[in-house]
Amino acid sequence: MKLLIINGPNLNLLGAREPQIYGDTALDAVLDTLRARFPQVELLHEQSNHEGRIIDLIQQANANGISGIVLNPGGYSHSSVAIADAILAVETPVVEVHISNIFAREDFRQRHVTAVGTRGFIAGFGIEGYALAIQSLLK
Amino acid sequence: MKLLIINGPNLNLLGAREPQIYGDTALDAVLDTLRARFPQVELLHEQSNHEGRIIDLIQQANANGISGIVLNPGGYSHSSVAIADAILAVETPVVEVHISNIFAREDFRQRHVTAVGTRGFIAGFGIEGYALAIQSLLK
Amino acid sequence: MKLLIINGPNLNLLGAREPQIYGDTALDAVLDTLRARFPQVELLHEQSNHEGRIIDLIQQANANGISGIVLNPGGYSHSSVAIADAILAVETPVVEVHISNIFAREDFRQRHVTAVGTRGFIAGFGIEGYALAIQSLLK
Amino acid sequence: MKLLIINGPNLNLLGAREPQIYGDTALDAVLDTLRARFPQVELLHEQSNHEGRIIDLIQQANANGISGIVLNPGGYSHSSVAIADAILAVETPVVEVHISNIFAREDFRQRHVTAVGTRGFIAGFGIEGYALAIQSLLK
Amino acid sequence: MKLLIINGPNLNLLGAREPQIYGDTALDAVLDTLRARFPQVELLHEQSNHEGRIIDLIQQANANGISGIVLNPGGYSHSSVAIADAILAVETPVVEVHISNIFAREDFRQRHVTAVGTRGFIAGFGIEGYALAIQSLLK
Amino acid sequence: MKLLIINGPNLNLLGAREPQIYGDTALDAVLDTLRARFPQVELLHEQSNHEGRIIDLIQQANANGISGIVLNPGGYSHSSVAIADAILAVETPVVEVHISNIFAREDFRQRHVTAVGTRGFIAGFGIEGYALAIQSLLK
Amino acid sequence: MKLLIINGPNLNLLGAREPQIYGDTALDAVLDTLRARFPQVELLHEQSNHEGRIIDLIQQANANGISGIVLNPGGYSHSSVAIADAILAVETPVVEVHISNIFAREDFRQRHVTAVGTRGFIAGFGIEGYALAIQSLLK
Amino acid sequence: MKLLIINGPNLNLLGAREPQIYGDTALDAVLDTLRARFPQVELLHEQSNHEGRIIDLIQQANANGISGIVLNPGGYSHSSVAIADAILAVETPVVEVHISNIFAREDFRQRHVTAVGTRGFIAGFGIEGYALAIQSLLK
Amino acid sequence: MKLLIINGPNLNLLGAREPQIYGDTALDAVLDTLRARFPQVELLHEQSNHEGRIIDLIQQANANGISGIVLNPGGYSHSSVAIADAILAVETPVVEVHISNIFAREDFRQRHVTAVGTRGFIAGFGIEGYALAIQSLLK
Amino acid sequence: MKLLIINGPNLNLLGAREPQIYGDTALDAVLDTLRARFPQVELLHEQSNHEGRIIDLIQQANANGISGIVLNPGGYSHSSVAIADAILAVETPVVEVHISNIFAREDFRQRHVTAVGTRGFIAGFGIEGYALAIQSLLK
Amino acid sequence: MKLLIINGPNLNLLGAREPQIYGDTALDAVLDTLRARFPQVELLHEQSNHEGRIIDLIQQANANGISGIVLNPGGYSHSSVAIADAILAVETPVVEVHISNIFAREDFRQRHVTAVGTRGFIAGFGIEGYALAIQSLLK
Amino acid sequence: MKLLIINGPNLNLLGAREPQIYGDTALDAVLDTLRARFPQVELLHEQSNHEGRIIDLIQQANANGISGIVLNPGGYSHSSVAIADAILAVETPVVEVHISNIFAREDFRQRHVTAVGTRGFIAGFGIEGYALAIQSLLK
Repeated sequence: MKLLIINGPNLNLLGAREPQIYGDTALDAVLDTLRARFPQVELLHEQSNHEGRIIDLIQQANANGISGIVLNPGGYSHSSVAIADAILAVETPVVEVHISNIFAREDFRQRHVTAVGTRGFIAGFGIEGYALAIQSLLK
Repeated sequence: MKLLIINGPNLNLLGAREPQIYGDTALDAVLDTLRARFPQVELLHEQSNHEGRIIDLIQQANANGISGIVLNPGGYSHSSVAIADAILAVETPVVEVHISNIFAREDFRQRHVTAVGTRGFIAGFGIEGYALAIQSLLK
Repeated sequence: MKLLIINGPNLNLLGAREPQIYGDTALDAVLDTLRARFPQVELLHEQSNHEGRIIDLIQQANANGISGIVLNPGGYSHSSVAIADAILAVETPVVEVHISNIFAREDFRQRHVTAVGTRGFIAGFGIEGYALAIQSLLK
Repeated sequence: MKLLIINGPNLNLLGAREPQIYGDTALDAVLDTLRARFPQVELLHEQSNHEGRIIDLIQQANANGISGIVLNPGGYSHSSVAIADAILAVETPVVEVHISNIFAREDFRQRHVTAVGTRGFIAGFGIEGYALAIQSLLK
Repeated sequence: MKLLIINGPNLNLLGAREPQIYGDTALDAVLDTLRARFPQVELLHEQSNHEGRIIDLIQQANANGISGIVLNPGGYSHSSVAIADAILAVETPVVEVHISNIFAREDFRQRHVTAVGTRGFIAGFGIEGYALAIQSLLK
Repeated sequence: MKLLIINGPNLNLLGAREPQIYGDTALDAVLDTLRARFPQVELLHEQSNHEGRIIDLIQQANANGISGIVLNPGGYSHSSVAIADAILAVETPVVEVHISNIFAREDFRQRHVTAVGTRGFIAGFGIEGYALAIQSLLK
Repeated sequence: MKLLIINGPNLNLLGAREPQIYGDTALDAVLDTLRARFPQVELLHEQSNHEGRIIDLIQQANANGISGIVLNPGGYSHSSVAIADAILAVETPVVEVHISNIFAREDFRQRHVTAVGTRGFIAGFGIEGYALAIQSLLK
Repeated sequence: MKLLIINGPNLNLLGAREPQIYGDTALDAVLDTLRARFPQVELLHEQSNHEGRIIDLIQQANANGISGIVLNPGGYSHSSVAIADAILAVETPVVEVHISNIFAREDFRQRHVTAVGTRGFIAGFGIEGYALAIQSLLK
Repeated sequence: MKLLIINGPNLNLLGAREPQIYGDTALDAVLDTLRARFPQVELLHEQSNHEGRIIDLIQQANANGISGIVLNPGGYSHSSVAIADAILAVETPVVEVHISNIFAREDFRQRHVTAVGTRGFIAGFGIEGYALAIQSLLK
Repeated sequence: MKLLIINGPNLNLLGAREPQIYGDTALDAVLDTLRARFPQVELLHEQSNHEGRIIDLIQQANANGISGIVLNPGGYSHSSVAIADAILAVETPVVEVHISNIFAREDFRQRHVTAVGTRGFIAGFGIEGYALAIQSLLK
Repeated sequence: MKLLIINGPNLNLLGAREPQIYGDTALDAVLDTLRARFPQVELLHEQSNHEGRIIDLIQQANANGISGIVLNPGGYSHSSVAIADAILAVETPVVEVHISNIFAREDFRQRHVTAVGTRGFIAGFGIEGYALAIQSLLK
Repeated sequence: MKLLIINGPNLNLLGAREPQIYGDTALDAVLDTLRARFPQVELLHEQSNHEGRIIDLIQQANANGISGIVLNPGGYSHSSVAIADAILAVETPVVEVHISNIFAREDFRQRHVTAVGTRGFIAGFGIEGYALAIQSLLK
C-alpha cells in the first residue's frame, strides 16, 4: 500500500522554524520515524512551496498507485480554493494535518478553505498528527 | 490508565440521528468497539446534553484519576466560552473530536470556540475519530 | 393525543416579567386557557431555564408518546446550536413560538439558530401564539 | 368581517413553482379551501408582483372596510423598507406569512425587513400558515 | 420655471402616519404652503408608491420642461440602485429630502443608496426641508 | 423561434446615459442590429423601469411561446430577491446580461442576487453582450 | 438674533483646498456673502481644527446668547462621539452642513456620527448649504 | 441585609486556574475576606457551571429575601441572552463583576451580552471587584 | 495621597445634560461629596473637552505626585487609540468610570478602546462610580 | 489570428471531475470542438495549476503574437490579486470564462478578484462559454 | 532647506514608554542624532498630543518655509479623517513614519486613515525610520 | 555584503505597466541605478511571478550568504500567509517595499498579510523605496 505525504510551504524548515510552535524535529527525522512505525506502508513524501505543485500531486496520486494522501497545506490552508477544488475533484482520500493548534493562533489562520473537501482533519498534535493521519487511512 | 470520553448534546442519539451525517452505529456499540481496541485503557464515558455538566466533568477529571479527556462538544463547540475556559483551567489534556467534517457544513458551525484550549482537534473521520483521539492520548 | 409545551428560560415569570412586552397573564393561566380550548388534547407542560434540560425533553418526547412539541426557546433561540441539533435529530415535529415580535427588538435577538430545524415558526401574537401552534400540530 | 390576503411576487405560481419547497396546491385551490374553512369571513384576495401595488393595498385597506391583512411579501420580505413603512403607517393589523421555513434557506433570505412592523409572523407551515394567520386575526 | 416634487412610498399618508416622526400636516397642505411661498415657480407634484414610477418621472422630467426635482424617496432611499442610476443618467438636478433625521433612526435606514447621485441632500427639518430644497434649486 | 429581451430600469436611456460607461448606441439601434444579425429568431423586446413588470414578463414568457429570455436587470440585479425567485420559478431559460464590467464598479454593485437562478451570465462586452446571450440561447 | 457658524478642521483652507471638491471661494468671502444675505442676523463665526474647541463652542453657545448653530464638523463628522454628545447635551439647535456630497465619496466618510443629534442635515450644495442652514434656523 | 454572590462557570477553580490572569486566592478565602470586611451583610454564595442554575438563582433571589446580587457570569457573559433576560425580568439589582480586564483579552470576550440588564459593571480589579460590587449595593 | 479625577468631554454639563441618563447632580456637587467621603485623599480634578489635554494630564500625573487616576473619557472612550496609548505608556494606575450603563446604549458606544490599558473599569453606577473607583485606588 | 485559451487549476480534469457541475466532456474534446467551430482562428491552449505560470502566460501573450486570451482562472478567480494585476498590466484583451454558475455556489466563490481587469465575463454556460468568449474576441 | 518633524500623541515619552516596542532612546537624543546625520537640513520639531495642533502645523508648514513634513501620527493614525484631510489639502509633501511594525500589532491598529494622503509610508524600522523619511524628502 | 532584491508578480513589467501608478523606469534601469548608488553592496536580483519561488528564495537566502532581503511581494502582499510564514521562519531580515501608496488604492489591497513578519515596511516612494530599503538594511 502506497501513501503520499504532501508537506506544503515552509514545512521543509521543520525543526529549525519557530520551534516553540512547530517542535524541533527535522522533517527527515519525522519521515524516518513514520516509516519505522508503519513498515507495512510505502510512504512517499513530497514537500513543495508551490501551490500549483501541490495541486499537481493531488491530481496525479491515483495514477501513481497512491491510496491516500496526508496533506499539510501550511499557509495555503487559509486561502486556496484551487487546492480545495483539487481535493474535491479526485477520489483519493485526503487527510489534512496541522502541527500546531491553529484555532489558538492569529485571526488570518481562522479561515479553513482546503478543509472543505478533506476526508478528515487533524490539528494540534505536533508531528504525531502525521501518524494519526496515516492510521486513519489504513482503516 | 483511565481516560474519559465526554459526549456532548445529542450524541446519545448516535446511530439513530441523521445517519447520513453521523453514521448508523449506536453509542453503546461505539464504546464496546473502543474498549475492545484499547484493552490497556480504562475507558470511562459520560454523555450529557448539559453545558454545565460537561464543565463539571472536565474540572473533576484530575481528582478522579483521569489522565486524558476525549471531548465531542457537539453544538456547544461553536459558542461555549465557558467550556473553553474549563479546558484552559485544568491540566488534564483534552482532545476534541467531531464525527462529521464540520468545515463542509453550515455557516453557524464555522466558529470554533472550544478548540482554543484543546490539545488536539480531530474531525471528519466518523466514529474512528474517537480511536484516533485515544491513541493520541496514549502517546 | 399528547402534545408537549416546552417553555424555555424566564418564561416561568410570564405575567410578572416586563408585562409591556410579554403581557400580564401568568403561565398557569395560559395553560388553563389552552387546556380549556383544546379539550381533545392532553397538554403536557415543562418549563426549564436549562438548555440541556430542553434538549433532554425534545429527545425523550417520542418515547413518552408525544406527537408534537410547542417550543418557546426564549433566549436560547439566538445561540443554541445544541437545541437546533436536537430538533433536527428527532422526528417529533417541533413548532417554535415567540410571544413578542422579536424582529422589532434588539440586535442580539436577530439571529435565529433554533429555527433552522423547526416545522414552523410563530412570533408576535402574544400568548395566542401557543394556541396557533397547537392548532398547527392538530392538522 | 372582511379580511384581505395579499400575496406578493411569484405566489401566483403556487403549485407549479418549485413544489418541493412551496407545495403543489394552486393558489385558487388554497383560496377555496380557506373560504370553506372560514365561512364567517369575507376573504378578499390580491396577488401582485409589484412592490408599489402591495403598498397601495395596505394603505387602502382601512378605507375599504378591511379589518386585517394576511401578507405573504415573498421576496420583498428581505429588502422592502417601503412595505415595512406602509405597515407601520396604517392601523390595520398585518400578519406576515411565509410558506416555507425561510430560516433554513439561503443567506439572502435571512434579513427580515417587513417583519419589523407586522402584528405577527408565521413561517414554515406550508399553506396551512394562511389559515393560522386568519385565525389569529379573528381573535 | 417648473419644478417637480416627487414623493415616494407612504408620503401620501403625511399628517396621518406616525405624526410624532413625520408631523401632522397633510400632503395637500404642505403643497399649498409651498406654492404660496414660491409663487414664482410652477410646482408640479407626483406621489407614488412604485419604484418604477419614480424612475419614469425622473427620466421624463427634462422632456416635460422641468428644471429641477425635489425627491423624497422614502424607504427606497436605502436600497434602490435603480433610482440612483436614474438620477445619474439624467441632467436634471435632483435634491433629496427626508422629513425626519434618518441618522438617528433604525439601522436599516443607515444605507444611503439614492444619495450617490443627488445634487444635494437635506434631512431632519420636517416639511420645511421641501422649502429648503426648492430654494436650493432656485439658486 | 421567439426570444424575449427584457431591459430593466434606465436601459431605455441607452446611448444618452453616461456614454463613457454604457456606450453611445441608442436602444432602438441595438435592437435593429440584433434583428439583422439573427434573422432566424423572432426577437421580442420589453423595457421597463418596474421590478414587478419584469417579474410579470418572466412569468408569462412560456405562455407567450417564448423559448428564452435575455435579461438585463439593471440596478435590480443587486437587490431583487423577487426577480431571482421568478427566474427560479419558471422553466424558460434566462440569460443575464450587463453592458459594463460591473466587477470593476462601485461596492453597491458587487452583490449579484438575480444571478442565482440564471442559466448564464455575461458582463462587460458592451451591447455585444446581447448578441452573445442570444447565441447561447440558440444552442 | 445671533447665530454661530462653526467650521471644523481644514475649512479655514476653503477656496485653496481641493477646489474641484470644495469650490474656489475663500472662507472670508463666504462669510461676507452670508452676512450680506442675512442682514437681520448677527452671524458669529469660529473655525477650529480642534475637536475639543468645537465642543466648547457648542456648550457655551446658549450662555453667549446664541439661538442656533450651523456646524460643519469636517472630518470629525465620521468619528466624534464627543461632538455628538455635546449636541445632544445642549438645547441650542444645531444644523450640520457639508459642502460636498459626502455620500458619493470614500468609504471612510460613510459613517455619520455627529448627525445623530443634529436638528437637520444638509450636504452637497457647496457653500450655498450654509445659507440654507441659516434659513432653516430663522424658521 | 442579605446579598447573594453568584459565581459562574470555572470560578470554583479560583486560585488554581491560570493564576497570572485570575490571581492565586482560592474562592473560599475570597468569601472569608469579604464576610470579614462586610460584617453587616449576610453574604450568601453560589457557584455553578450551569447557565440554567444561574438563571434559577437570579429568579428566586427576591423570594429568598435577597436585596442584591453580585454576578460573575464567567464565560456566559459573552453569549447568554437567557441570563440577560433573567436580569431584565427581576427587580433585584444585579451588579456584574469580572476579575480580569476582559477588554484587553481575546476577541471572543468582546461581546457583552449579560451586561445589557445589569445595574452596574466592574472589571479588572481582581477579587477586589467583589468588594466594590458589594459596596455599590449597600448604597 | 493625591488622586486625579479626569472628566472628559461634556462631563462639565453634569446635572444639566440629559438627566434621565446622567442624573441631576452638578459636577461641583459630585466633587464636594467625594472630598467629604474621602478626607484622607487630596482629590484633584480636571475636566476637559480636549482629547490632547486628557493625554497631557495622564502623562504628567506621575511628575505631579499623583498616585492614581480616575478617568471618565466620555465619548473618547469609543475611538481614542491615543488615550489608550497614554494609559499604556505610564505607570500611574488608571481606573475608567462611566456614569451610565453603556452596554445598554447605542451601537456606536459598543467599542471600548481606552479600556484596553486601564487597571479597572466601572460603569452604570451613576456618580457613585467615582467613589468606587477612588476606593479601588486606595487599596 | 491567434487566440490563447488559458485553463487554470483542475481544469485538466474536465469531464472526470464532478461531472454534475462541470459536465462530462474532456478538455481535449472541448478543444477539438472549438477548433472545428472556429477554423479561421489559431487556437493555442495552456492548462496550468500554477498561479505564477498563468501570470507568465498573460504577460507573454503579446510577444507571442496572440490577439486575445480566454481565461478560466478556476479557483484563483476568488483570491488572486496577482493575476488581476497581470490582466491590468497588459493590453491583450482577456475574457474570463467559468463553466458553472458560480453565483449559485458556495460563499467562498462569491469574491471576484480577477474579474476587475477583464474585458468581459461569461459564466454558467458550461463549455459553450468558451465558444462565446472566442466569438466576443473575434468581434 | 527646512523640514518639520511632527510627533503625535505619546511620542514625547519615547525611551521611557514600553521600550520593548518603542526602543529606549529618548526623543531629544533621537533629534540630536538626526540633526547630526543631516547637517544640510534645518530640522524643526514639534510634538503634540492634540489632533487639532497637528492639523494646524500641517496647514502652516508652507507659510513657514517648510519643504517637507515627517509625521508620526501615533494613535491618530487609525481614526483621524481630519488629519488625512489636512494632508490632502496642502502641497507640502508629508511622509508618515511609525516606529514599530504596526501590521503585527492589535486589531485596532489595522486601519490606516491618515496614510490615504501621505507621499510615503515607513514603518517598523524603529527610530531609523525618521532618517529614512528625511532622506526620502531630500530626494 | 550581499543583499537580495525579490520582485514579485508583474514587477518585470515595470516601466511599461500602468506608468501613471508605477512610473516609467524599466526594472533593469532601476537595478542599474541602485547598483550605482550602493557600490559597496553586491545586489542580487530575482523576479518571479510564482508565490512558491518567492518562498524558496527567502528560505535559501541565508545559505546563499545573503544578509538581507528587499521584497516587493506585489499582489501576493494581500493574501499570502505562506510568504508571511516564510519570512517568520528565517532569520534573514526582510524589508517590504511597495512602489505606489497602496493605502490610497482599491479595497482589495487593504489587507497586509506578508507585512506581519517583515522587519520594516516602505510604501509610496516610487522606485526610491528600494533605495530606502537597502539603506535600512545597511544600518
